[in-house]
Amino acid sequence: MALRVGVVGGGQLARMMIAPAVELGVELSVLAEEAGMAASLAATAVGDYRDAEAVLAFARAVDVVTFDHEHVPQPVLRALVDAGVAVHPGPDALQFAQDKLVMRARLAELGMPQPDWAAVSDADQLQAFLDDHGGRAVVKTPRGGYDGKGVRVVSAATEAADWFAALAEDANGGALLVEELVDFTRELAQQVARRPSGEVLAYPVVETVQRDGVCAEVVAPAPHAGDRLVAVAADIGVSIAEGLGVTGMLAVELFETTDDRLLVNELAMRPHNSGHWSQDGAVTGQFEQHLRAVLDLPLGDTTPRAAWSVMVNILGGPSADTLDARFAAVMAAHPDAKVHTYGKAPRPGRKVGHVNVVGDELDDVMYQARAAASHFAD
Amino acid sequence: MALRVGVVGGGQLARMMIAPAVELGVELSVLAEEAGMAASLAATAVGDYRDAEAVLAFARAVDVVTFDHEHVPQPVLRALVDAGVAVHPGPDALQFAQDKLVMRARLAELGMPQPDWAAVSDADQLQAFLDDHGGRAVVKTPRGGYDGKGVRVVSAATEAADWFAALAEDANGGALLVEELVDFTRELAQQVARRPSGEVLAYPVVETVQRDGVCAEVVAPAPHAGDRLVAVAADIGVSIAEGLGVTGMLAVELFETTDDRLLVNELAMRPHNSGHWSQDGAVTGQFEQHLRAVLDLPLGDTTPRAAWSVMVNILGGPSADTLDARFAAVMAAHPDAKVHTYGKAPRPGRKVGHVNVVGDELDDVMYQARAAASHFAD
Repeated sequence: MALRVGVVGGGQLARMMIAPAVELGVELSVLAEEAGMAASLAATAVGDYRDAEAVLAFARAVDVVTFDHEHVPQPVLRALVDAGVAVHPGPDALQFAQDKLVMRARLAELGMPQPDWAAVSDADQLQAFLDDHGGRAVVKTPRGGYDGKGVRVVSAATEAADWFAALAEDANGGALLVEELVDFTRELAQQVARRPSGEVLAYPVVETVQRDGVCAEVVAPAPHAGDRLVAVAADIGVSIAEGLGVTGMLAVELFETTDDRLLVNELAMRPHNSGHWSQDGAVTGQFEQHLRAVLDLPLGDTTPRAAWSVMVNILGGPSADTLDARFAAVMAAHPDAKVHTYGKAPRPGRKVGHVNVVGDELDDVMYQARAAASHFAD
Repeated sequence: MALRVGVVGGGQLARMMIAPAVELGVELSVLAEEAGMAASLAATAVGDYRDAEAVLAFARAVDVVTFDHEHVPQPVLRALVDAGVAVHPGPDALQFAQDKLVMRARLAELGMPQPDWAAVSDADQLQAFLDDHGGRAVVKTPRGGYDGKGVRVVSAATEAADWFAALAEDANGGALLVEELVDFTRELAQQVARRPSGEVLAYPVVETVQRDGVCAEVVAPAPHAGDRLVAVAADIGVSIAEGLGVTGMLAVELFETTDDRLLVNELAMRPHNSGHWSQDGAVTGQFEQHLRAVLDLPLGDTTPRAAWSVMVNILGGPSADTLDARFAAVMAAHPDAKVHTYGKAPRPGRKVGHVNVVGDELDDVMYQARAAASHFAD
């Protein structure tokens, strides 16, 4: 019988595990939220990931359960573990990806470099933090945010009044996370893979370009990155993977500051947009690597296949036609571009695909990737 | 609605179209001979490819029909075309892949370099050919042979007596193909992609190593291949693709003779074992290229990603356990090897997977690929 991996969540990350699963001969199953999602080809069940019974029933037919997202509630994760299911990443690790306050506290214990931060339960506490940090800061809801949602730059505590009001209505109470507004020169991301039995391997650190809080472009490896930067980033990634007990792929989003420090911004315990370049640009893409890691198989070579890889997201897509209506034009103009689409309907700002270009000259690779992706815009 | 490609035949070639189809966002359907075949993930129907009704019903839900093999009978192919179905490659091209006598005659008309050959209807004709060609020759059944089946080296006409007897019982009569035993230094293969609208693109010519009539290894590009050899091979491939009206991938197996000529051995009008290296070793792998070509989309870049790629077939596989029982050992020893398996039960001599290794030093790439594949042997 083939090795069987079950993915909870039917989005594009699950979808992009299909190709390496087929190549390797791993039987991939997906528990999708609804029919017709991005990973529908491998969807063997449709169900609610918050329903322990549904997830348990799905898990019985696989060797290991992994995830398309970090939103499966802790009680469901614990029920899987209690039932003897192999879950990677496991609930102990996932709690740090599910709650940014818990994550900040644990990273502080591990001595990881971070922006100044605090848990604030009311407007007075937030205002005090603002007063101590130049009058501006980033406020985040600890849970449920992604792609810029649940994140707000404020210069007065009143600007988070609605979030504090929501906290007050929440029976669990709790607090918001506030972080200093870091004076950064650029954003980086560090991918790390780690197996349950302990093997851990870093990819080269990459530069990410965000627009409106959403990843727009990634350059791999990060340009102008000296040996020290590369080593420090890898060390941070490996330390977090080990310190939090992450299994599978881990993405660590980093700020590079004007005074040459790296500070940890966000974590993702799964294949991540900042690692999509590796599908075409590394010997082992992050989706294959994630499958290997969660199956506790030896990790693959993370070496880039060429000097440079650039990934450009297709955001929104054309409003009047489909992505593939643009294939003829983009493929004719960019025969070396690798086009990845997610089978999702175009919608403003939605990630519906990406383009990877790999080559030896950064200027040319960047130009080709951007030009190719631009064919899919309106 | 997504672009829809239907593949007749559920073997490993159809299976290996799944990964690029998912990446691009092409909806792939497979008409499999039976349940549980290599391409079962994309199998939307099970049916007999010799049954025109079954194939027509399958074809109605796709934009273009293509093939995992060349065995679909001409009447079925013609019925599809008559029903307005786009079929690539089409029946006019496929007839040359289905009958080696028809192929030889057409290649002669095109002026392609070939071994001496003849159609022989009886033992006397075969003996006359043997007498003219040093007493030994290769006899082939024109139809249905593959991987060394239907091919026999003979030194006396009596050694083909059973095939002549079978011809005599066949209402269609017909003849056997006899070819001179070419004095070759090595075997090469030329991959070409061609679109219905005419664009045609060659891959670099590769060296193939056969054992017991089955492809064992491929080195891409062919070592010690000068510019002239590369150009002549590409020209032969392009001329045949255009001359026979091939659409999709074409593989031309070639002999390189001791006197530095290239002679056409066999043709395959589909992705071919000799092109598997391109999955990991070329910017555009042959399975993505085949999808692009049959959809009449612009062809992808055929440039190698690195200096050398070596593909080694996994033949037979372990008798006592499964391929994936060997994953831990092979992945630990060869982190840069790309393992491809076909979901087929091990059986002596059966192609159950292959390994690709890509890199800059041929000796090392060859060693890694062979060593990795050897982990799957008994």
